[in-house]
Amino acid sequence: MSEENIYTFENKDYRSTYWHTCSHVLAQAVKRLYPEVKLAIGPSIEGGFYYDFDAPFNFTQEHLDALEAEMRKICKEKLKLERFELPRAEAIAFMQEKDEPYKVELINDLPADAHISFYKQGEFVDLCAGPHLDSTGRIKGNAIKLTQCCGAYWRGDSNRKMLQRIYAVAFPKKEELDEYLKQREEALKRDHNKVGRDLEYFTTVDYIGQGLPILLPKGARVIQLLQRWVEDVEQKRGYLLTKTPLMAKRELYKISGHWEHYLDGMFILGDPHDETKECFALRPMTCPFQYQVYLNRQRSYRDLPMRLGETSTLFRNEDSGEMHGLIRVRQFTISEGHLVLRPDQLEEEFKGCLELAKYCLGTVGLLDKCTFRFSQWDPANPNNKYEGTKEQWDEAQRVMGQILDDLDVKYEIGIDEAAFYGPKLDIQYKNVFGKEDTLVTIQIDMLLAQRFGMYYIDENGEKALPYIIHRTSLGCYERTLAYLLEEYAGALPTWMAPEQVRFLPVTDRAADYCADAAKALEAQGFRVEVDYRNEKIGKKIRDAQVEKVPYMVVVGDRDMENGTVSPRHRVDGDLGAMSLDDFTALLREVVDSKAKK
Amino acid sequence: MSEENIYTFENKDYRSTYWHTCSHVLAQAVKRLYPEVKLAIGPSIEGGFYYDFDAPFNFTQEHLDALEAEMRKICKEKLKLERFELPRAEAIAFMQEKDEPYKVELINDLPADAHISFYKQGEFVDLCAGPHLDSTGRIKGNAIKLTQCCGAYWRGDSNRKMLQRIYAVAFPKKEELDEYLKQREEALKRDHNKVGRDLEYFTTVDYIGQGLPILLPKGARVIQLLQRWVEDVEQKRGYLLTKTPLMAKRELYKISGHWEHYLDGMFILGDPHDETKECFALRPMTCPFQYQVYLNRQRSYRDLPMRLGETSTLFRNEDSGEMHGLIRVRQFTISEGHLVLRPDQLEEEFKGCLELAKYCLGTVGLLDKCTFRFSQWDPANPNNKYEGTKEQWDEAQRVMGQILDDLDVKYEIGIDEAAFYGPKLDIQYKNVFGKEDTLVTIQIDMLLAQRFGMYYIDENGEKALPYIIHRTSLGCYERTLAYLLEEYAGALPTWMAPEQVRFLPVTDRAADYCADAAKALEAQGFRVEVDYRNEKIGKKIRDAQVEKVPYMVVVGDRDMENGTVSPRHRVDGDLGAMSLDDFTALLREVVDSKAKK
Repeated sequence: MSEENIYTFENKDYRSTYWHTCSHVLAQAVKRLYPEVKLAIGPSIEGGFYYDFDAPFNFTQEHLDALEAEMRKICKEKLKLERFELPRAEAIAFMQEKDEPYKVELINDLPADAHISFYKQGEFVDLCAGPHLDSTGRIKGNAIKLTQCCGAYWRGDSNRKMLQRIYAVAFPKKEELDEYLKQREEALKRDHNKVGRDLEYFTTVDYIGQGLPILLPKGARVIQLLQRWVEDVEQKRGYLLTKTPLMAKRELYKISGHWEHYLDGMFILGDPHDETKECFALRPMTCPFQYQVYLNRQRSYRDLPMRLGETSTLFRNEDSGEMHGLIRVRQFTISEGHLVLRPDQLEEEFKGCLELAKYCLGTVGLLDKCTFRFSQWDPANPNNKYEGTKEQWDEAQRVMGQILDDLDVKYEIGIDEAAFYGPKLDIQYKNVFGKEDTLVTIQIDMLLAQRFGMYYIDENGEKALPYIIHRTSLGCYERTLAYLLEEYAGALPTWMAPEQVRFLPVTDRAADYCADAAKALEAQGFRVEVDYRNEKIGKKIRDAQVEKVPYMVVVGDRDMENGTVSPRHRVDGDLGAMSLDDFTALLREVVDSKAKK
Repeated sequence: MSEENIYTFENKDYRSTYWHTCSHVLAQAVKRLYPEVKLAIGPSIEGGFYYDFDAPFNFTQEHLDALEAEMRKICKEKLKLERFELPRAEAIAFMQEKDEPYKVELINDLPADAHISFYKQGEFVDLCAGPHLDSTGRIKGNAIKLTQCCGAYWRGDSNRKMLQRIYAVAFPKKEELDEYLKQREEALKRDHNKVGRDLEYFTTVDYIGQGLPILLPKGARVIQLLQRWVEDVEQKRGYLLTKTPLMAKRELYKISGHWEHYLDGMFILGDPHDETKECFALRPMTCPFQYQVYLNRQRSYRDLPMRLGETSTLFRNEDSGEMHGLIRVRQFTISEGHLVLRPDQLEEEFKGCLELAKYCLGTVGLLDKCTFRFSQWDPANPNNKYEGTKEQWDEAQRVMGQILDDLDVKYEIGIDEAAFYGPKLDIQYKNVFGKEDTLVTIQIDMLLAQRFGMYYIDENGEKALPYIIHRTSLGCYERTLAYLLEEYAGALPTWMAPEQVRFLPVTDRAADYCADAAKALEAQGFRVEVDYRNEKIGKKIRDAQVEKVPYMVVVGDRDMENGTVSPRHRVDGDLGAMSLDDFTALLREVVDSKAKK
């Protein structure tokens, strides 16, 4: 028996089972204390478990405290878990009798020949496929924490009823829970979904929709400067800028394969199934659009590599339950690019893409925590999710693996994580809660050029098919901003801070002096504000600190008499009195070097 | 009888009647020469007339020549035009007998009690409401020109059959036609829809869709630099940048009034009439999105004016028949902004908006040909097209009229051209064919703040409603680019030219010298190319001219020996030998001053 199979909390399957049984204990506690509440579903998830309830009241902290106490009791009762099965009709009748309409709906949706299993512990029974621990006594009752309660649509469908989802964690030891809660408190302080809203980087509005964040002036300014910087970096590396439409007729996506492989992920304008009418879709990717630039004239082997870049807005029709701040959204903007290459240029250009991504991620300060994933197709995938033959995939993955080895990239392998047209190198990042997402991706595509007839004329005057690399430099700007807010706990480095310097006049007399100094710095391209409010200087200083402005310049009589400024850096502290020219030079150095402070 | 009512070609009604009769003559000529062709419709339009035909062949230049000859003949025949009416059933039978299915469909769609009138000239009869000239002899047969034949969907519906539309012009004198054709030839040379494609600024692709242009690298670069420039100009004027979602749920548009007044102009994702399901729409305007930034916290009178700016992409679901190059499109990007104001700030801020627009249009070189239109509602409009009461509109238009008079703006009045929420000052521009569109708009809105609950706290601590100005600085970038290409006949001024300098090495030896010089200029931020092709220098020079590169630098032995460059400007001609530093300084001056060359 390998170590992996030992049932300890380090084992993923055991952990999942532990949490799943915890979710039954939670449901049991709810039914004991509030019998009128209806049960929906309660799975284990990455990092814990949840249960969805339909309650005639809102769960408050008092409810959660009472539930935790009841759960501790249930654990102490050491109730045996027993599995039993019922025929379909009896299963339905059983749940109807218990007046659990959501369970009835679930059973109705099971295949006609499914084994319908239940788990029983004490007086409590739940519809469940299992597996479970054998006793509630296996659970450490005082190491469970109900962390959060929020709304969740029944079956993730925004047209169905909004239920209440109670999230929770559980550990085999009390100390582990305490450690987790300490880390979580720390994470919450950095959580971009809180920090970003508090510092007015972004907001969301119910009647606009989930996953459609509104970038407030601070957030918009940071994204603007990141965008311009990436565009300029790409231009210097020989990228040609494009600007292509955000939607297209169904016909385009039929050629690209998105219609076959990605329809559910797209927002459709019109009826996708009525072929007699024009039907548009918002783009989920830039590829088939940017290819039109290549196709605008005949290309020769001398024109390759052609590197195309675009600050591109994309749309993904994701479940509303999946949305999270700026990290999981339905619309985002990204430095998309496609390189059209001769086969002999593939490795060199792939290397260039990787270097570019590392340069961008390193400069903003996210590279150190990135990991690499070699995302491959699933040869066993039964859903026809991928384009191309096994031979084509083997070849593309062989080439990519070779390049990654040549470049000495340390990667994990992700099966069934490829794009439908080819394998990917994904650069992964974890948010403060440990949830991992892709930040940057570099993909090798040996299939789509043929579908679009993207030939070039080779040295022998023959038509030849190019390879295509799909890639980003920095990743989607919204997600990048989220990770930056978390990495720097809201205190963005000066070069990307929306406000770089704030002058705080101590007296009315100092206001003009501050205005002149601010104007001089603004003329040099710095982002400067003056706090003219009729407030005590102490409050002005506290506000500048809370808003995490990198440089604060309090101006009183002494500086005015001496014609100096006395800046204070957020981290470095007081920098002493200096001339405005010297402060300008200091700022110039910090900003131009993109220093991480 | 006022001069307006005299029937001369200067009179708009007479001209329209003249062209309408011409369209019947065209249809008569078609039926004489190609009796199998079916007739659709043939109205007079601004600047001439057209007729749509369903023909089993494509009209070629030979067909058009033969038709012009036959039209001259018909004019010489001096056929009388006679009007007669038929009851509905007889009218249908009459057109069925003539085997004109499109006419039958038109009659079927007329109201049951409509007078169904026909016009007859010689053997030819057409369904028509008139009026017409009394004889084909009134038309100057040798002053008619069939200018163009292109595809047009029956009834503008892309799901119906594609017909052939023959466009034509006609004048009362041969010399007027000749003058027109000369001007037209000149216009065609500047037509952005030709120049922009030939010079690879943009293209369109059938399977992406009409009105969805693809900006190729040159076009994308120009739009990028215009965008950045406008964003920076606005930032200097105290605008706060925002970045808001491109779509929202139906609920937002219900509050804003778009759902009631603008539904047909929007792209809808989902079924707009099924209220049980979530339904999104792409935004046709930025207003209700940008208002959320204002609404993010409570605002005080001290926070106003708040000037919000955004480089915003908008979508309009226009008829495919309306599409034209970069001027009429379904998706465009624009410098949208909203100013939230106290009433006492309205005039000053309106003035600021007008100055900003004039500054931007003047800098790019379009202001001199702009005209101003004061766009008002139509008090007689029966369609409930406008929000608000007569009193509110009278007040808003009075205020705007007063401001325009104070600012000494010379305007025309456009009735029924207002936005649904308020009057507009539209800055109008004509393309090379004389077709006018709006380039920039500044609007006063006294209604929407209330709908969104956008209050501020006034000096007395009371809630007060702000005014809102909706405005653009430069207008939609695609349309602006189109007008710039037409204004400069493709030779954009150096500061906005996608390629500013091209080095042309005469020999292989010169290539490195050129590469170094190009690199030095690029490091200074200029856009530079080197023509490394193995071509004769004569061809390289011709290509650079055709591509309208502002500065061409041919490098041969002499410059290499002397360490100089000898640039040649597109218009100024040879500038003589100079050091690279001097050339850099010269370029810097031309670019920084945004000179119009």
